[in-house]
Amino acid sequence: MRGAVLYGPRDVRFEEREDPKIVESTDAVIRIAATCVCGSDLWPYRGLQPVSGPTPMGHEYCGIVEAVGREVRNIKPGQFVIGSFAASDNTCPHCQYGYQSSCEHREWISTAQAPLLRVPLADGTLVPTPGVPSDDLVPSLLTTSDVMGTGWFAADAAKVKPGSTVAVVGDGAVGLLGVLSAKQMGAERIIAMSRHASRQKLAREFGATDIVTGRGEEGVARIKELTKGIGADSVLECVGTQESMKQAINSTRPGGYIGYVGVPHGVALDGEELFFSHVHLHGGPAPVRRYLPELINLVLNGNINPGKVFDLVLPLDRVAEGYRAMDERRAIKALLRPQGDSK
Amino acid sequence: MRGAVLYGPRDVRFEEREDPKIVESTDAVIRIAATCVCGSDLWPYRGLQPVSGPTPMGHEYCGIVEAVGREVRNIKPGQFVIGSFAASDNTCPHCQYGYQSSCEHREWISTAQAPLLRVPLADGTLVPTPGVPSDDLVPSLLTTSDVMGTGWFAADAAKVKPGSTVAVVGDGAVGLLGVLSAKQMGAERIIAMSRHASRQKLAREFGATDIVTGRGEEGVARIKELTKGIGADSVLECVGTQESMKQAINSTRPGGYIGYVGVPHGVALDGEELFFSHVHLHGGPAPVRRYLPELINLVLNGNINPGKVFDLVLPLDRVAEGYRAMDERRAIKALLRPQGDSK
Repeated sequence: MRGAVLYGPRDVRFEEREDPKIVESTDAVIRIAATCVCGSDLWPYRGLQPVSGPTPMGHEYCGIVEAVGREVRNIKPGQFVIGSFAASDNTCPHCQYGYQSSCEHREWISTAQAPLLRVPLADGTLVPTPGVPSDDLVPSLLTTSDVMGTGWFAADAAKVKPGSTVAVVGDGAVGLLGVLSAKQMGAERIIAMSRHASRQKLAREFGATDIVTGRGEEGVARIKELTKGIGADSVLECVGTQESMKQAINSTRPGGYIGYVGVPHGVALDGEELFFSHVHLHGGPAPVRRYLPELINLVLNGNINPGKVFDLVLPLDRVAEGYRAMDERRAIKALLRPQGDSK
Repeated sequence: MRGAVLYGPRDVRFEEREDPKIVESTDAVIRIAATCVCGSDLWPYRGLQPVSGPTPMGHEYCGIVEAVGREVRNIKPGQFVIGSFAASDNTCPHCQYGYQSSCEHREWISTAQAPLLRVPLADGTLVPTPGVPSDDLVPSLLTTSDVMGTGWFAADAAKVKPGSTVAVVGDGAVGLLGVLSAKQMGAERIIAMSRHASRQKLAREFGATDIVTGRGEEGVARIKELTKGIGADSVLECVGTQESMKQAINSTRPGGYIGYVGVPHGVALDGEELFFSHVHLHGGPAPVRRYLPELINLVLNGNINPGKVFDLVLPLDRVAEGYRAMDERRAIKALLRPQGDSK
């Protein structure tokens, strides 16, 4: 088969890779219905996170099970499944506490931008849908594999509840789905920070009540102004830079909550500042597996349509264009569909 | 009157200061029944936090109201009162959310090691006891002004609940009262980190089930061992150094909670490490005012006896000896009683 491989900064190639097969008896191999490019893929794509040699890419996926190892009990060939970007046994203590992305046997999925994917710990990782869903639901179902689950975790970690005032730092796909999540959880006011018209529009569609275009201190001042000087109850940090973390901390009221899901790059938090800010801080790689059943249901029942974040759809062999468009912020998120050529 | 004044590293003097009086119409002046030396007083005493010129000291207090300003409604002369180290109006939004130590009109109390003390925002800050308590209850009541409230906040911020496994980093008075708080909140297992026999003994008396003497990586390894490799549900960080924060983070299970109350000195948290640790982090200056009514009741009803942390009792004029004994860790905490000389 052919799949995406990153060679270095801004050099993604679609090239021949070995077909995945069952390695461990707990594996499954699935035929990808759709995959996509993640905001976190842009860190190595931009050279901000070094790669050592050619690196297969992709960790968001859904599709039809082709084969399972002999110890797999609950996942069957022919099922349509969605799994987290972090494979987990779903039975260890961390999993039982709902932190499957810290599973004692965690393995990161990292080769999903391809027509076939090996998924370790299939029983723990994959969630089947009831029957094969109609094709128009595939984009939204795909988002539950990472980006929707991550936005949801941000809102959950930030303790959004009915009536909350929420601010969202970051207008990438995760931030936008953080807006949708906050809305779904009953937030009364949702302030989205964005300076891009198309993203502002989608934020409003997902439930944002206010848009703040300022950044840094100016952005913080505007949020304070919108909240009568108090600050937001809940802030979703969906970027992962020093500036965005600082903005999140300063936008939160004392006793408020920050859910941070942007993978931190070069972030150092000053202990004393954090102490006197009185905020609650929680985040990390989203425990998507915890949320999958609920989010799949919300999609299947038509309650949410997170697939709207895909404003670019490409055949998988044009994956490099997907990276380029997201890097240049021409696209919010690129959906990739394997075609006949990918056999 | 004479009171404690810090001149520089290890130079505390008991000397003439102006008698406090009503300045704002919302003030009270109280006659101190007892005050004490706080672990946080040791930072400037040791020269680790610079002071600019002679600095009056002390922020833990209880006593009898001598006078009130004309706008004070609820506090009356003759009442025995206890207040937080942070004066607060108890009506602003932050106060209403329970974060009185981030009150919009917060003022730090800083002149309490003296026979008389001016307390701003008396109605918001002070809590009277029903009648004047018997003298043997004064030490325990005094602790609710800061050290007990701070240990309680650490346990509350770390979400200790019935059945929890708790680790406490720091065997100062706050850490020891964190142990007592965790016990009171129903923790099943309480691991105290201490290498001092007298502190270990008090920790056990307050409810510790295990003692870990190792520090740093060794201490973390021991806590992991005691928790079947999982880590603690709740960790109370009661020191405020880089090492103690790191120890707290590494001792907590993914999804667990850290309550940190040691004022951070030179602490920088690595964003990526924190992210992948999956911990919840909350702390800051304890909102003691929130807990005062409950803690006063627990003391008056004999449910808790936090005054046991005072293993040194001195007349106020020997305050310098109190600092010395705590600095050299000869004493856990020094209680100071004004005497006749202090008029």
